[in-house]
Amino acid sequence: MSLVGQAKASGATVSRSIKRTYMSVGPNFPELILSGIQPTNIPHIGNFLGVISKWVSLQRTTHDSVKLLYPIVDLHALTIPRDPEHLKKSKLETAIILLACGIDPARSFIFEQSKIPAHTEVAWFLNCITPMSWLSRMTQWKAKIKLNKNIQSIDDEVLSSSGLCLGLFSYPVLQAADILLYKATHVPIGEDQVQHLELTRDIAVTFNKMFHQNVFPLPLSIMSDRIMSLYDPSKKMSKSDPSNTRINLDDSPAIIAEKIKKSTSDSLKCITYDPITRPAIANLITIYAAMQEITVDQAIVEHSKSDIKTFKDALTQVIIEKLSPIQEEIQRLRFEQGYVQQVLKGGAEKASIIAEKNLDEIRKVIGLK
Amino acid sequence: MSLVGQAKASGATVSRSIKRTYMSVGPNFPELILSGIQPTNIPHIGNFLGVISKWVSLQRTTHDSVKLLYPIVDLHALTIPRDPEHLKKSKLETAIILLACGIDPARSFIFEQSKIPAHTEVAWFLNCITPMSWLSRMTQWKAKIKLNKNIQSIDDEVLSSSGLCLGLFSYPVLQAADILLYKATHVPIGEDQVQHLELTRDIAVTFNKMFHQNVFPLPLSIMSDRIMSLYDPSKKMSKSDPSNTRINLDDSPAIIAEKIKKSTSDSLKCITYDPITRPAIANLITIYAAMQEITVDQAIVEHSKSDIKTFKDALTQVIIEKLSPIQEEIQRLRFEQGYVQQVLKGGAEKASIIAEKNLDEIRKVIGLK
Repeated sequence: MSLVGQAKASGATVSRSIKRTYMSVGPNFPELILSGIQPTNIPHIGNFLGVISKWVSLQRTTHDSVKLLYPIVDLHALTIPRDPEHLKKSKLETAIILLACGIDPARSFIFEQSKIPAHTEVAWFLNCITPMSWLSRMTQWKAKIKLNKNIQSIDDEVLSSSGLCLGLFSYPVLQAADILLYKATHVPIGEDQVQHLELTRDIAVTFNKMFHQNVFPLPLSIMSDRIMSLYDPSKKMSKSDPSNTRINLDDSPAIIAEKIKKSTSDSLKCITYDPITRPAIANLITIYAAMQEITVDQAIVEHSKSDIKTFKDALTQVIIEKLSPIQEEIQRLRFEQGYVQQVLKGGAEKASIIAEKNLDEIRKVIGLK
Repeated sequence: MSLVGQAKASGATVSRSIKRTYMSVGPNFPELILSGIQPTNIPHIGNFLGVISKWVSLQRTTHDSVKLLYPIVDLHALTIPRDPEHLKKSKLETAIILLACGIDPARSFIFEQSKIPAHTEVAWFLNCITPMSWLSRMTQWKAKIKLNKNIQSIDDEVLSSSGLCLGLFSYPVLQAADILLYKATHVPIGEDQVQHLELTRDIAVTFNKMFHQNVFPLPLSIMSDRIMSLYDPSKKMSKSDPSNTRINLDDSPAIIAEKIKKSTSDSLKCITYDPITRPAIANLITIYAAMQEITVDQAIVEHSKSDIKTFKDALTQVIIEKLSPIQEEIQRLRFEQGYVQQVLKGGAEKASIIAEKNLDEIRKVIGLK
């Protein structure tokens, strides 16, 4: 089964110098899906439904020949100061959560990014062909400058970026290296990563042109569903917002019930799906459908006669039922750290075979070998 | 013999946030000297006298326990577009020249930087603690922006850096990684690298403070002699100036004689050393003394009765005599590429032992291991 049909190509790039629309990966690249996860605290159901469960379903919906790589991106975690002990534990905890959610290490490679030195090596090669302006344009960088400006009340753009570290500016190139090193053809991402994937394609095109060879595919996105805040349906569910705006994967049934009960709804009594006029209810319906892997339409039919309280009770039940076995598995795996470490080691070994082969080719192309 | 006494500490840093003067390397770091060479075309006598012959003499003047590392920095070469085939050949040619000039692979490790992936890995760690402002302040970066501004006539500083690649902005951090990865205590440099070595120390201090451990020494500089242009003694001898302003290591005796004959002198007939009032003659005396490894005073005594023509003839002779065996050795080694490649491989293996040990420690300190 080809994934190209499923993936949304994200259209023309914003680059001024490369005027082309990327609608295809390029010739002769076997399908390979890659997406990274930050080793931070317990994910919420937004991460779970938007990202992790997508990765799990790809294990069923793709042909066995399609490689699935999910690095735990500990090098990216370093762009923000971290307590070293906490970082170490978070990496293991992230692996535990992925396994508990259904990632099958026999089908998907999960591994620590820092175990494969080729990531930073390729990032350096790409640093040398990526114009500063492409990175200055990144919305996430601009947002960080703005935040810093607010904190320090500095008007000048150059000055207000001063305190920010180079890692925060240059990490989109490391992301590009994460993807291109494995010649990934498809990348599951959220909307906030669309611009970075476009940058990756721009970099791939530049490299291929500069060295007159089709070394890198132009990876396409597989867009994730967006789960919104329980309190403000115009905002994405986020780890940085107060805890009652989201449901964490380790929330107890009582907390889940409380958070859903207090979640924003509206004055209408019935259940209809309309993201424009009823965004809060639409978000809850999306969660309900995604938790059961049914369509929104099926969810609506089910609750055509429910009022909001009935629907919220059903939603609570569905979330508890979905998370309960995952929570049990998380608890169990926390006592199986040796096994989890073996999984990560095995994943790194398998990823390394692909990385070394591609790195060897890249080195030859640029004249290092 | 301790090198600390020889090395010039380069004083207070320019950093606003770190107000300290680095006068010592720090406690308990065994002496290790490291300096990189770009794999570009044939060096001139400025490179030879200022850099390479210094490296050669360190083999005699340091204790056997002091490690000497001279990486051929092919990763830095990538910051400017290169023809891959030419880059490959230049690396081998650079190794040949180092050996022909007297680098002893049993005493000094010469190796290709790109063979040790830890360089880019440590560079990434350091990217994450290096403020953007420290890099924006680098004189060499500002010079590149200015050059770009002149070419493109753009007034805005941000815009005029646009076309420059990230590698040109971030390479001082890779340099810091080159040095800190091996915990180098002393770095032979020219004046144009003083600011980058200060940056390296600022980064080392920041890292040590952030992780509450003395992981990195604060490396000191060993300053190189400056050989100036044969035509304009206010400018450094440079590969980017016209060929008659410099003597290349492979210039024939006839060309050397011609270039020295036409080199700038002054209207006085006698030979005196005064860099302020007679900079051109002072430069020629410096070359004469350095070629013979005698002091400037000894050279003056030798030529107290010479006129300029006699002195220039003697200088020509001295240069030819010094370069002739080196040129023969270069020719011989060009037919011994297998041997040269073995030297590079052996150097990388020895450097790798130090790099892996230190990388392991660094990874543990930041929580990756």
